Order: sequence, then C-alpha cells, then structure tokens
Amino acid sequence: MSHMTRVSRRRLLKQGALLVSSGFVLNSRNGFSQTTLAPADSTKVLGPLPSELGTRTPFESIKREVGRFDPDGYSLTPLEKLSGIITPSDLHFERHHAGIPSVDPEWYELLIHGLVDRPLKFSLADLKRFPSESRICFIECAGNGYKSSLDRSDIPEEVTPGQLDGMLSTSEWTGVRLATLLREAGASTRATWFLAEGQDAAVMSRSIPMTKAWDDALVVYAQNAEALRPEQGYPVRLLLPGWEGNSSVKWLRRIEVSDAPFMTREETAKYSDARSAGKVELFTFTMGPKSLITSPSYPAVLPGKGWWEISGIAWSGNGKIEKVEISVNGGKSWQSANLHEPVLSKCTTRFTFPWYWDGKATIFLSRTTDEQGFQQPSVTEARKGRGPRTYYHNNVIRPWQIDNDGRITFGLKTLV
Amino acid sequence: MSHMTRVSRRRLLKQGALLVSSGFVLNSRNGFSQTTLAPADSTKVLGPLPSELGTRTPFESIKREVGRFDPDGYSLTPLEKLSGIITPSDLHFERHHAGIPSVDPEWYELLIHGLVDRPLKFSLADLKRFPSESRICFIECAGNGYKSSLDRSDIPEEVTPGQLDGMLSTSEWTGVRLATLLREAGASTRATWFLAEGQDAAVMSRSIPMTKAWDDALVVYAQNAEALRPEQGYPVRLLLPGWEGNSSVKWLRRIEVSDAPFMTREETAKYSDARSAGKVELFTFTMGPKSLITSPSYPAVLPGKGWWEISGIAWSGNGKIEKVEISVNGGKSWQSANLHEPVLSKCTTRFTFPWYWDGKATIFLSRTTDEQGFQQPSVTEARKGRGPRTYYHNNVIRPWQIDNDGRITFGLKTLV
Repeated sequence: MSHMTRVSRRRLLKQGALLVSSGFVLNSRNGFSQTTLAPADSTKVLGPLPSELGTRTPFESIKREVGRFDPDGYSLTPLEKLSGIITPSDLHFERHHAGIPSVDPEWYELLIHGLVDRPLKFSLADLKRFPSESRICFIECAGNGYKSSLDRSDIPEEVTPGQLDGMLSTSEWTGVRLATLLREAGASTRATWFLAEGQDAAVMSRSIPMTKAWDDALVVYAQNAEALRPEQGYPVRLLLPGWEGNSSVKWLRRIEVSDAPFMTREETAKYSDARSAGKVELFTFTMGPKSLITSPSYPAVLPGKGWWEISGIAWSGNGKIEKVEISVNGGKSWQSANLHEPVLSKCTTRFTFPWYWDGKATIFLSRTTDEQGFQQPSVTEARKGRGPRTYYHNNVIRPWQIDNDGRITFGLKTLV
Repeated sequence: MSHMTRVSRRRLLKQGALLVSSGFVLNSRNGFSQTTLAPADSTKVLGPLPSELGTRTPFESIKREVGRFDPDGYSLTPLEKLSGIITPSDLHFERHHAGIPSVDPEWYELLIHGLVDRPLKFSLADLKRFPSESRICFIECAGNGYKSSLDRSDIPEEVTPGQLDGMLSTSEWTGVRLATLLREAGASTRATWFLAEGQDAAVMSRSIPMTKAWDDALVVYAQNAEALRPEQGYPVRLLLPGWEGNSSVKWLRRIEVSDAPFMTREETAKYSDARSAGKVELFTFTMGPKSLITSPSYPAVLPGKGWWEISGIAWSGNGKIEKVEISVNGGKSWQSANLHEPVLSKCTTRFTFPWYWDGKATIFLSRTTDEQGFQQPSVTEARKGRGPRTYYHNNVIRPWQIDNDGRITFGLKTLV
C-alpha cells in the first residue's frame, strides 16, 4: 500500500509527462492505440467486444520450459506462476519418447484382447456411450524432481519450482472405468496383469496389475472439460490415478490381458528403481507423498522483513493429503499449514502459511503426510532405504534458503 | 463396437486405397505430411516435439457463440461440448456492457474508502501479499436461460444447452478475502452496504450488502491457476460466490463502504425482477437451484433404442447440490442421478444417469434440490410467485423432447 508513490506517479501520468515514454498515442477509431497496451483512463475507451476464444493478458507471460533429448524431450509446468490446483491444459507438462503422434479419431480403435471371453474393439464413440466418470487428479512423471538428487554433489541452487518438479500437473479428467470395458470383454478371473500400449512412434508399453484396473483405472477422452490435448494422448489415454505418469499410457490403442507382466523395455531398461546393495526394484508405481513450496522461491528476492505468505502444493499417490507442516528454522520446529479446499484423493492440495520473516538468513521447508500415514522423507531417510543413486520417485523434502538480503535459492545442499 | 465395419475399413487403408482420398502424402523430413492431419500409421512417424504452449486437436472445433448488442454483447460457454465441471478459461462466458478494458497492472489500484477508519489503496502486488484463498465455483449471469421464458409463447425448440444457459461457467478462482481488506481499512460497524465499481467504460457499479463481504466475498486475481483473462476482469475482479454474475464486478477499482445501497443504474433500470401485480423486486442476488441436461440434447439425434447416458450439470447459489432427479416420462416418475465428485458449495456438480431409451417419443428432464432444501421449480410453480414476465433468475426445469426418430429438441413448450 505504497500510497504516496502511487499518487505521485498517477499525477505525473495525468500531466502527460509519461504519455510519450509509455508509448501511448491516441490514433484509432475509438481512442485505443495499437502502440500501447492500455489507455491512461480505461473508462473513457470502449473496449474490444466478446470473441469466440479468449486470450491471455499481454501484460503477463506464461509458458512451459522445454527440454530436448534425442530424439524427444519434455516441457515443464511453471509451478511458481500458478495458484490453486488446476493446471490449464496448454500448460500441462509433457514427456514423450517419440514425439506427439497425430491420431485420426475417425480411425481410432481401442483393442481389448488376451485373457478375455470376447476380444473387442471400441471406437471413440463407443467409449463415450459407456457410463462416464470425472475426477480431478494429478499426473506426475516418475522422473520428476531429479534435480533434488539423493547424491548431493549435483544439486543446483538456482532452480525454480517448475524446473525442479514441473513434470507434475493436475486436471479434471473424464472417461470410462477400465473395469467397465473389461467386464464387457469378459476378462478372465485368472488375469493378474494387462499390457497398455500406445500408438506413438515409441509404441510406449507398460505392464499394469489387474488390481489397478478393478480399482480406479480410467480410459479417458476429456481433460479439463474438453477433448484431450494431442500431447496428452488425444483421442484416448489411460489414467492410473496416483501412479507414475509413464504408466498412464497416452494414445492408448491396445490392452492385452494376461497372467504375468510383459517385461517391456520401459519397465526393465527404464522406470525401475536402484536400491542399495546394487539391487533394482521393478514396478514401483505409486508416487509417494510430496510437498513443494512454490512461493516464495527462486528467483524471488524478498524486499524486506515482515509478513509473507508461504504457498505450495502437496500430493500423494496413496490418497488424500492429511497434513502439511512448515518449518522456517531449517527443520528445528514445525507448524501446520492451512489446507485449501477441495482436498481430493490423489490430487494436488494447495497449502498456505503466514510467515513473519525477521530479515535473517534461514531455511524454510515443508513436509507432508498422507491419509495412509506415509510421510515425505528427508534426504537422509530416503537414502537409508534407497541408496544414493535413486533417480525415480524422488519425493524428498525440498527446502528453500533465504539470505539476509532476501535472496532465495534451493537449499537442499546446505540443509543438515 | 462395430467390429466388422472397422476391420474392413482398416484393410482398405492398408491396401492404400484411401491414401489418396485422405490426402496423405509422405513429403516432410520425418515422413509427416503437412497436407493431412494424421498418418495412416502413427507408430511409424516421429511426431512433433514438446512446445512452450499446447494446442487443441485440429480434429475437434470448440468455441464460444458470440452475440452482439449495441454497443456490446456476450459470448456463451458451449456446455454441450464440455465434460466434468471446469470451464477452460478461454471458453468462460462473457457479458460486458462496454467491451473489455485494458488495464495496466503496473498502474492498477483498488481504492477502499467511505465508512472506514483508514482509506487505502492497494496495488496488485499488495493484494497478492495478503493471505490467499482458492475456491472452485460457478459464475452465472442473472439473465442466463432467458430463452426458457415463463411466457411460453416465445420458447424456441431448436436451442442447444449452450445457447440456452451458456452464461454459466466454473473456474478455480484465487484471491484475498474482501473481509481481510475491509479489516485492514477499519470498516465501520455501522456499514451495511458497499459499492463495487469497475473501470470499464460502463463503470459497472453495484451495491452489495456488507453481510456478503464478511461471509465469502473474494477479491480475485487468478482464474484456473493463472492471471485473470482480460475479459474476466484482469487484473482484479470481485467474486461473490453464488450470486448473479453482474455483481462480481470485473476490473474492480473502487469499494465504497456505506450505510445504504447506492441505487445505481444497474440495480434499478436493470437486474431487478418483475413480480406479479406490477411490482419489481430489487437486490435478488442469489442464483437459485438449477440443473440442465447437456447430453443428449439438441441437435443430437439418437440412432436407435438402447442404453444412453444422460449427463448434465446442477448448481445452486445456496450451497451444495443435495440431489438431482431424472424423469424420462415427462415428469410422471423420478429417479436419482449419480452425483460425481467433487460436490462443492456454490459450484457446478456433474450428474449422470443410465437411460434405456425404448425408441418411443418422450420428454426427459432433470430437477435439483440444494442443501438448503430449495428445489428447482416447474414453469407453473415459478409463475405463481413471479408472474409471466420474469426475465432474470430463470431456473425453471429444462425438459428435452425426443421424437420416435431420435430427434431431440428443447421441450419446455410441450411439457404439461
């Protein structure tokens, strides 16, 4: 509420002193200039009329950071710029292994076969005719957060929440329960696994336990109310709530029911977890409890001591978030954060905490516990069970460090 | 699951017979053609890599229908094309009285004055520093659904859900409680009303009871996680959950606290409800309980008898939806629909109902009851209290008529 500063700036504007430097020129039909973004007094100018599709404000830029592998890559949801829990569809993270296939919905078919009484093909219209279900839940890449490595030698200090954990997004998804389709096909009671296969150029394939199919697996065709985005699997993807994103196979074309896992490349060469004593654990699907403070965070600089709101998101593949705790003294003591409604199962939950920063250097961090009682681990706790080379499922506590000049950096390296 | 038809079409495609007619030509670096939308086999073509912003599928078109008044107009959310409850921000309905103002966030100020101890101005950064709150709720224009008039002479039969009730949208909004700002300014205990004023060229102004300010009014700066869209009030709008949309003043610049309503043009010449005996009721803010079947609906034609899913949305400004009932025999008998999670206060709730259509002409309809016990009225019930000329707050039961050829039209005129 910097009252005086604002009044004097406004006075300057009224006097026209800033009209030239701000580039504002009255030159169009209704007094709205193309050379500037806003008139000095918006009440004196008739604005543009409604249109078929809205656009973002030109005053704020928002986009995904893109990384390229060979031959594919990823894009990251800019978590530090988002409020609440919903991710706009065009900001949902991407991780593909062979680019985004283009699938004609007219020719689309989902084949269900294997240990079933009646192999069936479903068109997109077929799928939409079955009882539908909508749910708001997160999808997180198994490799999300790799920069918060358990091997502390490679932890960066200058990293934004989006760069750290931006392979996490939340949407409202709509589709049909996989269980409904499996009953239609008459899946065998002997079946214990199924293969989910995508029709991208990587033919992404994963083995999934049938228990997940009977529990809450969905075959979805809508995201945030409308058709899936091409990069999210248009026209149809699998959705396994709470499980590593890679298993929610996009551009889903085939489900083969079986009595054993298929041991595909994506579950042997990749998406397996290194454990201590040189062992590797396969089929570690569930994304553990995790929380991340998104504000304040790098590269923010707090201008001075006083009240600041700490805000972030927490999520767990085990169910609902039970609580989020905040420490503003490097983990010596903890206090409960406010959880914002709605708190949904296997969904991000927004938390906030009012923080009086005394202007001194400290480390602030969050940890969450889910409704099954699982708690987000510290690096030390995580290393005990996993060994230092764990790459996937990195849900360790994420601290931020603030210096006495207000500069904030990622603080995992310095946290004891 | 038209198995044979699909197989034979695919066989044709394999033989290349359709390659020419579908326009598919291999002519680019990676075999992906610019002259067609999809390759015959997407697994053989490396697709586009991740990008900064996603795009919609080119196979499905979605947009708002635009209407023009003089000098402004509206755009309608295409409800019949949406699943779940979230409205993507660029499909949120619009209703402006003087177009969309462009407001520079650097120069933005919210003034709170009147019956307060300390008149204050808040910059956008100031507002973001206060404790934030996110909530998912609907905004509905007071004039929504006017085509389902209580004067039956003008009810159309060929109208889509979006054309009928598309001035209804649901977003996750984030901001600060108005109560927090009023406490900061020291609002007087004598205050009973406040004026909310926008900085559009209509200088939209409404009087709001202070009870709403102390209850759940928000001053919001984010919609579906990111900055408000310009047409939704960028940088800041008022949000009065459950109340007529017009009172959630966009481009909010001034709040004047008072001990009486201000009797602005927008609450005398407009947004007042005609009642029986020539009387007019002012300040009817709450949007009553309402439900609408969005599928099947005009212009759909059901190809034949069998199981079809009835799907729709229900909402009430009084709180949560308690139940939705469906009748498939013109109102003779009713059955409960399934309510999909989450069921949130003052928010749209998705409902579905499995319907076996026997192929005969009938009228199907929904009615909802909210947690306060208010029930969506029939036309006859609504006319009793309101008289036939009611224009605003039209929440009467919305029936659809299906003919024995499967053709569906809006059925209010024919419903007894």
